[in-house]
Order: sequence, then structure tokens, then C-alpha cells
Amino acid sequence: MKAWQFTAVGKPLTRNDIPEPEAGTGEIVIDVKAVGLCHSDVGFLDGTLTSLLPFRPITLGHEIAGVVASTGPGARRFAVGDRVAVPAAIEGPGTSSNGGFQPKVAVRENLAIPLPDGIAWDQAAAATDAGLTSYHAMIVQGAVTAGTKVGVIGFGGLGSLGAQIALAVGAEVFVVEKNEKVHAFARELGVTDVAADMAAFADKKLDVIVDFAGFGTTTNAAVEAVRRDGRVVLVGLGVGEGTINLQALTLNQVMLTGSQAGTPEDCQAVLQLIADGKVTSRITHIGFDQIGDGIGKLERGEVIGRLVVLYD
Amino acid sequence: MKAWQFTAVGKPLTRNDIPEPEAGTGEIVIDVKAVGLCHSDVGFLDGTLTSLLPFRPITLGHEIAGVVASTGPGARRFAVGDRVAVPAAIEGPGTSSNGGFQPKVAVRENLAIPLPDGIAWDQAAAATDAGLTSYHAMIVQGAVTAGTKVGVIGFGGLGSLGAQIALAVGAEVFVVEKNEKVHAFARELGVTDVAADMAAFADKKLDVIVDFAGFGTTTNAAVEAVRRDGRVVLVGLGVGEGTINLQALTLNQVMLTGSQAGTPEDCQAVLQLIADGKVTSRITHIGFDQIGDGIGKLERGEVIGRLVVLYD
Repeated sequence: MKAWQFTAVGKPLTRNDIPEPEAGTGEIVIDVKAVGLCHSDVGFLDGTLTSLLPFRPITLGHEIAGVVASTGPGARRFAVGDRVAVPAAIEGPGTSSNGGFQPKVAVRENLAIPLPDGIAWDQAAAATDAGLTSYHAMIVQGAVTAGTKVGVIGFGGLGSLGAQIALAVGAEVFVVEKNEKVHAFARELGVTDVAADMAAFADKKLDVIVDFAGFGTTTNAAVEAVRRDGRVVLVGLGVGEGTINLQALTLNQVMLTGSQAGTPEDCQAVLQLIADGKVTSRITHIGFDQIGDGIGKLERGEVIGRLVVLYD
Repeated sequence: MKAWQFTAVGKPLTRNDIPEPEAGTGEIVIDVKAVGLCHSDVGFLDGTLTSLLPFRPITLGHEIAGVVASTGPGARRFAVGDRVAVPAAIEGPGTSSNGGFQPKVAVRENLAIPLPDGIAWDQAAAATDAGLTSYHAMIVQGAVTAGTKVGVIGFGGLGSLGAQIALAVGAEVFVVEKNEKVHAFARELGVTDVAADMAAFADKKLDVIVDFAGFGTTTNAAVEAVRRDGRVVLVGLGVGEGTINLQALTLNQVMLTGSQAGTPEDCQAVLQLIADGKVTSRITHIGFDQIGDGIGKLERGEVIGRLVVLYD
């Protein structure tokens, strides 16, 4: 079967012929129905994240949803025909073993989770990375619940998911996004207000602000704008370090906390919100043959929403 | 009676003759037994904090312990003869009304708390500000409990109290203090280890680090040294802003939180630790006549421990 594989830093993905995988001990083989392309894939190719890959050539693709095609010795959690997703993880397929840029993939069964009824394949795949990251930042690190006043900085893929997740649990959402072209989209989702700058919400006494941009200046603006005893969650890594108003942080007892990826439980929760129709990713579909081109488009910033490959 | 009063920015405290206070509605008059001198008093005199003072001349002194001498109409919480302290607060005596640099002071009864048995006057006074601030940082914002591995940056007045409070609840304490002259004192208190630099404890996987110095560089060193999902509490305000490694904060999900002053409950808790012999402030005693000189010594950094006036 064909597989889009990483071979060396600086080279595009190569389409290789490889044997179909078999389910080893404790493994399942998934018949991939949808797989998402991710900015991390660009990082694997350009050297930034390449050190995470344990061997080469290796098939990338870590946002996987599909149907269990076979089960290996000792694998008892799933039956053939079960619909599953694989929450993105460093120890998972597409990073530590061959991933979903091939039609069938072998996965340790404890890395997979069952899909709720009624969820589309493309939405399931998109939830495995951006979805669980947004959920973890908003609900776990941000502790957002019904009635929380939340600021969302950056309304790209993660930010728009984060805003929907906050709305789904009953929070009041204020969006800060420099690109005014997406303001209408934010309003359509039901947020309370949208502005180009955090200063517009300085008098809102926000309980929590989640910074999906992470440009240092955005994090500092959040520290200065959040209410006393409020919480700022940093997800985006736009810069390595930033200048923070430590006086405001101390005198207002602001809690600034990082949020990194998420857990299978976070993924399960966001899949349920998607199945319930409360959260939707913006998706552009491509075919298997376009994976190589798709990575290039991601690298050049030409993609709005997530790029997802639908198999069949 | 004599009172040491603030009159104008840049002028030393003036010793004025004022009438003895009477207990108004909801107030008690305290016969002051001990009052502490604080760096904030220097700030009131030099202009830094002067805007907090609502009138002038005003008697300073916000670290008060004493005996209830009389109660006003409607004041029912205390009886004449009760031993009380007044937790430092912006709305309290020495900031919003005449304070303890006079032998008798009128205080709203809800600002006072009862003293536990067996606590000395000087220790009680010192607990009302430094004690409650250290307790709030360590136990409330830092969530330190038995078994927590705590780093304490800065072993001055606040830091040495913070370390004792952490030890009193059963934490394991590691102290970072540039001034190696105080290392022996830290060891005597029973801390696990002392070093001049945070780097010495980089492999300790500290759960919580409380930065009593607050020089930006110290806060960043704490963010980089604390364990994954660990907590950094910032108390000291050595600088207004600082450069923070936001990548480390995010990838390790570090929580950086400010801690500002404390509550009457915090004061009550630390007074009990002192009464139980688990926490002691280092104190230099002075007489009432030396209050003016004492402020000058504080300003010039000539004081080790707290300066406390003992009346009678």
C-alpha cells in the first residue's frame, strides 16, 4: 500500500510502497477513514520537531479516525468494526510509529478511544489534536464553567474551537483577534463581543483569558486585563519568552498557567461536544494524493481551518 | 498623649500631642502593647505609598497588638481586657486611620482578631503583616501541605517566616539566598538544603517555589526549575516587570501566581503557629522614643529582622 513518509530534513514527504501492517500483541489495526494534517507535520519536515521521530522513513499523520480492522493477541478493548479515534500523543502513531498517512495503521489499543455515535469522520480526526488541546486549555487549565466570563485571544483553529467549547459549557465569551475578517464568524458562533485589541475588554473583569496566540505582548495584555484573582492560560507559543507585568500579577493575584496538549479524557469530552452538535471544526477536505501538496500549503499559511484527508 | 505622625512627603515623622481616642460606634480602643515598624512606613514618607493616606497629619503604625481598653456603642465582639491583634489592611489603622505609633488607638472591632494564649506581644505584632503575607503566599496561593517540596527564594523577613510556616505544616524546604551569611540560620531552622542559586536545585523537581525576592530573574529561574504542573508564587516586588520563559511555562504547564498581603484568617492561623512555638520572627526591640530613628534605619537597610516597639 502507499504511504506518505518522512525521509530527511528539508525533503518533502515521499510516497513509498510499504507492506500492510499486522496487529502485534496489544495492538489493533485501524482502517483509516480520516486523517488531519497539522502544523507539527511541517515541524517534522523542517527540522524543528524532527528529533521526536525515532526512525526513518516513517509515515506521518497523527490525527486519526477510523474503523478497527483487526485485533492482535491480548488486545481486548475493541472489536473488529468499532469506530475509534487516536488522541494525538508523542508516543502515538505519526510521531513514534507509522501514522495515518497510509490507509491502514497499527496502534497500541490503549492509545485509541471509542467514537460517540453520530460524529462524522472528518470532525473526529480534527478533534484528536486541535480539539483536545483547546478543551484542555479552556476546561482543565482554565477551569471554565457555566457563567465564567472568558476572553479568547486569537481566533484561528484552536481559538475558534476554544470559544465554541466555552460557549458549550455556558460561558460568556469575548474574542480578541487582530484579523477583523474573522470577526463576523466569531459573532455567528454566539460570542458576546469581538474586538481587535484586549484593551476593548479592560472593564469587563474577565475571570479567565486563554491566549491562543502567545506573542508575549498578548500574554502580558491578558495579565493586565484579567480580574483580581483571575486566571490567564497560555497555549500558543508565538515567542519563546516575553515581558510580563509582575507587579500587576502580584498585586492582583493573577494566576498565569501554561497548557500543553491534552489527555485521552479531554479528547473523549470534546468528541462528545462535537457529536452533540455544540462544537464544529472548519475543515477543508483533500484526497490522499494531495497530502504532499497539503503540507506545503500549511507551511505557506494558505489554509483556513483544518486540512483533513477523507479516505475512500 | 504623644503620637508619631506623617505630615508631608519628604519630612520625617513628627511627634505631636493629640487627645486620647474614644471608641465610636462599632469601635474598640486598644491599649497598644507592641507595634511593628514596616517598610511600608518608609513608603508612606517618601511618596511611594502616600496616596493611600486619606488625611494628614495621621499617626502611622499598622502592626498592632494590645489589650482592649474600652468598647464603643454596638461593639460586642470583645470585652475590656481581651488580648487582640489587628491584621494589616489598607482599610485599617496606620493607613486609613490613626495607627499604633501612639499608646491608644481606636479600631473598628471587625478589623481586630483575638490573640491565642501564650503569645508574646512583640511576636504578635510582627505576625500582623509579614506573618500573614508569608502564610498567604505559602499556604493559600502556594497550597503547600505535608510532604510538599518547596523552594523559598530570598531569606529575609518574609522568606524566613515562609520557610518556618512550610516546615510547620510538614513540607520539605529548599532555600535560595545569595547572602551566604544567613545560610547557617536557615539550616538551624531545619530546612533540607540552602544554596546561593536556584540552579543547585534544578534536579529536585520542586512542587512549589515561592519567590520572596521578585527580581524578575528570580521568578524566571523558578519557572524554569519547578516540576511539570508545579506552581510558582510571586510575593516580592523587586521589579515592575520581568522576562519570563513562556515556552517552559507552557510546555511544563507551570502555574505562576501572584500573592498579595493576606486575610484575617491567615493572620489567625500564623498567630496560632507562633503560639505553638513553630514559627518565630527575628525581632529587634526599640522604645517609643526611637520610632523616628527606627524608620530612618529601615530606609537605610540597617535592620535585621523586624523592628518592634514595646510599650510600658
